[in-house]
Amino acid sequence: MDQNLGLIFLSELVGTAMLVLLGCGVVANVVLKGNKGFGGGFLMINFGWGLAVFAGVVVSIYSGAHINPAVTFGLLAKDLVQGNEVNWAAVPVYIIAQLIGAFIGAVLCWLAYKQHFDIEEDPGAKLGTFSTGPGIRHNGWNLATEIIGTFVLVFVVVGFGAQGGDAELGVPAGLASLGALPVALLVVGIGASLGGPTGYAINPARDLGPRIAHALLPIKGKGSSDWSYSWIPVAGPIIGGVIGGATAPLLIATIAGA
Amino acid sequence: MDQNLGLIFLSELVGTAMLVLLGCGVVANVVLKGNKGFGGGFLMINFGWGLAVFAGVVVSIYSGAHINPAVTFGLLAKDLVQGNEVNWAAVPVYIIAQLIGAFIGAVLCWLAYKQHFDIEEDPGAKLGTFSTGPGIRHNGWNLATEIIGTFVLVFVVVGFGAQGGDAELGVPAGLASLGALPVALLVVGIGASLGGPTGYAINPARDLGPRIAHALLPIKGKGSSDWSYSWIPVAGPIIGGVIGGATAPLLIATIAGA
Amino acid sequence: MDQNLGLIFLSELVGTAMLVLLGCGVVANVVLKGNKGFGGGFLMINFGWGLAVFAGVVVSIYSGAHINPAVTFGLLAKDLVQGNEVNWAAVPVYIIAQLIGAFIGAVLCWLAYKQHFDIEEDPGAKLGTFSTGPGIRHNGWNLATEIIGTFVLVFVVVGFGAQGGDAELGVPAGLASLGALPVALLVVGIGASLGGPTGYAINPARDLGPRIAHALLPIKGKGSSDWSYSWIPVAGPIIGGVIGGATAPLLIATIAGA
Amino acid sequence: MDQNLGLIFLSELVGTAMLVLLGCGVVANVVLKGNKGFGGGFLMINFGWGLAVFAGVVVSIYSGAHINPAVTFGLLAKDLVQGNEVNWAAVPVYIIAQLIGAFIGAVLCWLAYKQHFDIEEDPGAKLGTFSTGPGIRHNGWNLATEIIGTFVLVFVVVGFGAQGGDAELGVPAGLASLGALPVALLVVGIGASLGGPTGYAINPARDLGPRIAHALLPIKGKGSSDWSYSWIPVAGPIIGGVIGGATAPLLIATIAGA
Repeated sequence: MDQNLGLIFLSELVGTAMLVLLGCGVVANVVLKGNKGFGGGFLMINFGWGLAVFAGVVVSIYSGAHINPAVTFGLLAKDLVQGNEVNWAAVPVYIIAQLIGAFIGAVLCWLAYKQHFDIEEDPGAKLGTFSTGPGIRHNGWNLATEIIGTFVLVFVVVGFGAQGGDAELGVPAGLASLGALPVALLVVGIGASLGGPTGYAINPARDLGPRIAHALLPIKGKGSSDWSYSWIPVAGPIIGGVIGGATAPLLIATIAGA
Repeated sequence: MDQNLGLIFLSELVGTAMLVLLGCGVVANVVLKGNKGFGGGFLMINFGWGLAVFAGVVVSIYSGAHINPAVTFGLLAKDLVQGNEVNWAAVPVYIIAQLIGAFIGAVLCWLAYKQHFDIEEDPGAKLGTFSTGPGIRHNGWNLATEIIGTFVLVFVVVGFGAQGGDAELGVPAGLASLGALPVALLVVGIGASLGGPTGYAINPARDLGPRIAHALLPIKGKGSSDWSYSWIPVAGPIIGGVIGGATAPLLIATIAGA
Repeated sequence: MDQNLGLIFLSELVGTAMLVLLGCGVVANVVLKGNKGFGGGFLMINFGWGLAVFAGVVVSIYSGAHINPAVTFGLLAKDLVQGNEVNWAAVPVYIIAQLIGAFIGAVLCWLAYKQHFDIEEDPGAKLGTFSTGPGIRHNGWNLATEIIGTFVLVFVVVGFGAQGGDAELGVPAGLASLGALPVALLVVGIGASLGGPTGYAINPARDLGPRIAHALLPIKGKGSSDWSYSWIPVAGPIIGGVIGGATAPLLIATIAGA
Repeated sequence: MDQNLGLIFLSELVGTAMLVLLGCGVVANVVLKGNKGFGGGFLMINFGWGLAVFAGVVVSIYSGAHINPAVTFGLLAKDLVQGNEVNWAAVPVYIIAQLIGAFIGAVLCWLAYKQHFDIEEDPGAKLGTFSTGPGIRHNGWNLATEIIGTFVLVFVVVGFGAQGGDAELGVPAGLASLGALPVALLVVGIGASLGGPTGYAINPARDLGPRIAHALLPIKGKGSSDWSYSWIPVAGPIIGGVIGGATAPLLIATIAGA
């Protein structure tokens, strides 16, 4: 493994662990009994997840702060569309690091909220702290919602440099100078605007890693890990991310050539 | 059609679609049954719409990020007041792209929330997801509220460079360096502060495009598209935008000449 | 009147009108019946007022964006403490412009919410839209709360350049580069943290201008303008502002000399 | 005492007083009867504390804006790990100034909310305004939650320059150019995400200083200062801060050497 892959592995693992610790944390605070933030509402969850992205991006900046396989696949799609050379070896390193990081973040969240998991009686609230689930279950429509939400995320981030400026493409330095803030605000917005039907996974690692943790951890009184739903927050974000990553550079090329 | 008009068309269409997808999305989340954000409150709607503007402005930056006919007309008024040469051909391209984009955004929002539109029984909640309506119906006062709200938006944006710095006019670079953030914050503020009576269209495309979508889409159990009200969120924002765009440069010229 | 005073007058009038239109607007939205934001909560009021400051500061940047007599007096105190030459003629121009601007902003707010003032039955809600009032009435303690709140505002703004960088004093350019954002965030924070007992006037013009408007406007079913309380949100902010403006440079000089 | 220690003492005292005045203030507003923000919810408390950090960092920038012994110890751990020369004399000056500042801030908060402390009947609400307490009391788990929360704060701030850029380590200037904003956002996020079980002291001075004030002040109808719990919000944050401050540079060195 060359040195660069080691950097990527460590940085993405830490960033995704940070993301999931804070992200699952805000859900635990709002849905588990006995917490100070119990019943705090969906806007609180939106800000909590958005600021979880903020912290996760800040600490994984050395690897480009993907912390989301949908972003990794979206950037891959962008490279393929643009005919760039692809570092194929890096792709699985990103994904595996993100999954392991998400698992670790979920374990830390469980430890931070251990007693509240213990006293909570509703197994659905416990699983909801780890992973997303639909308001109205339907494979096709739930998938569509995840595709649309992740498309928005990756289209903006990959195409318009929310994680870094691009003078060549005309992205103003100002956006990049805000660091992790634009992508955090974007995730607050996607959560508020497109999170209603499925709880906005928009990140396969964020959903699958904690779901594995839910299955493995000795959580008192836990129920099913709902594996029948688990492929939707994986497939939807990957599809949406690839579409977003592929269409954003096509759009910009069209505009630049217009 | 010259190349520049093609760029404008594509960029404004994409930006306004993004704006309306996220903007109508947050309303759907809060008002349609079965959503995670159901009953999330007006501040959540304010942040959702503000961050919808954030995302919409980011992805339409190549065309100046109007994504609102009131801004287009306001900039036109500014040019006329200042005696600048006007690119008349661009005006209808901006407006048409914004309307088509808004229509597309509304369709995408409907798809993302399809099942929740299906189970919702109140036709008013469905229309409210697409377009604005008044708390207390009255042509004159509803129009006044939309004029005041849009005046604030366009006066600040056109006059004080929330979308770009202007060293000549003394607007600090700092404001521009924040990119899409100032206009997003401004829209959060206008929504919270002036959105009470009419739900703050403050953008003819944002209201008319989705209303056309509401009329055309096969939405289960939908009611009237309330066409009798539809002219107010078109006329009010245009009037407010023209006044804002015309008075801001007059004020600055007066101050600069003072 | 020299040209500079004309600039100040116009700029401060516009900025304070913007401040009060949006600031009183969010209260109207939350407390007057029939509004979309009715019952939206105190955090919504905090963000509304904070973003009102944001917009007000942006549009009054040519005059230094005081839009608050407590800031004007605080800067005066700073100049006297530092032995700077004072432009005495400017002081009344600032104050008068702020009062007139606040009056105009309150009138515009009343127009934007006209029908909701008409149907509201509680005269207290109507006055509360215009001006502040105490939760528990007591001259001394209400005054103390207003002094403390305004001290925080002016101490930070005057001493630490929330409205502009100061390389000489070591204030990082970054703070200034955020433009109107730091002072807006500060006001969101002061409102949430110190607004409980008196509703945080922290600005004599913001309270007195709208109170005069309340007394003069033909508001349907209005009650008393509560003149017996009116001196507290004038005197408290002036005292707090002078203390903040005087102590901040003393502190910095002590540190710099330490 | 050399001049530098005097600077540190004064700056940290002022910054921590500002932090605690605003931070305890928002809790008072939400939990004490008769306040405008009564019942305002946990997200309001999260924003209030985050913006308290914002103001506190701004006014203590001359001393590096620790305003938290966990940050001071975290930076010490970083220096030891990196083999830097340590200014041992400064450490107790930082800590003592932070404690005195926190005490003063709590007294000012009590004065600002004096009447609301007087009418409130629940002694728990009074203590909760000053200091944190657990939802479910358990030494081990409460300690764990405080360790995890403070680890996140110090790991990000010390390792990734939320309080200042570091070109050598590859931290983008953009993050630093945002001044006090990133650390404020981080604290909003930690509060929302990890504040549920213990109310997130994540700062020994913030908890112990106000607890001493609670014990000494003549607060009407006050109850116990809960000294049996008081060591947890001191020990937990110090442990978490040291781990965060030690591991962040190790991680970055590993990545840089990878």
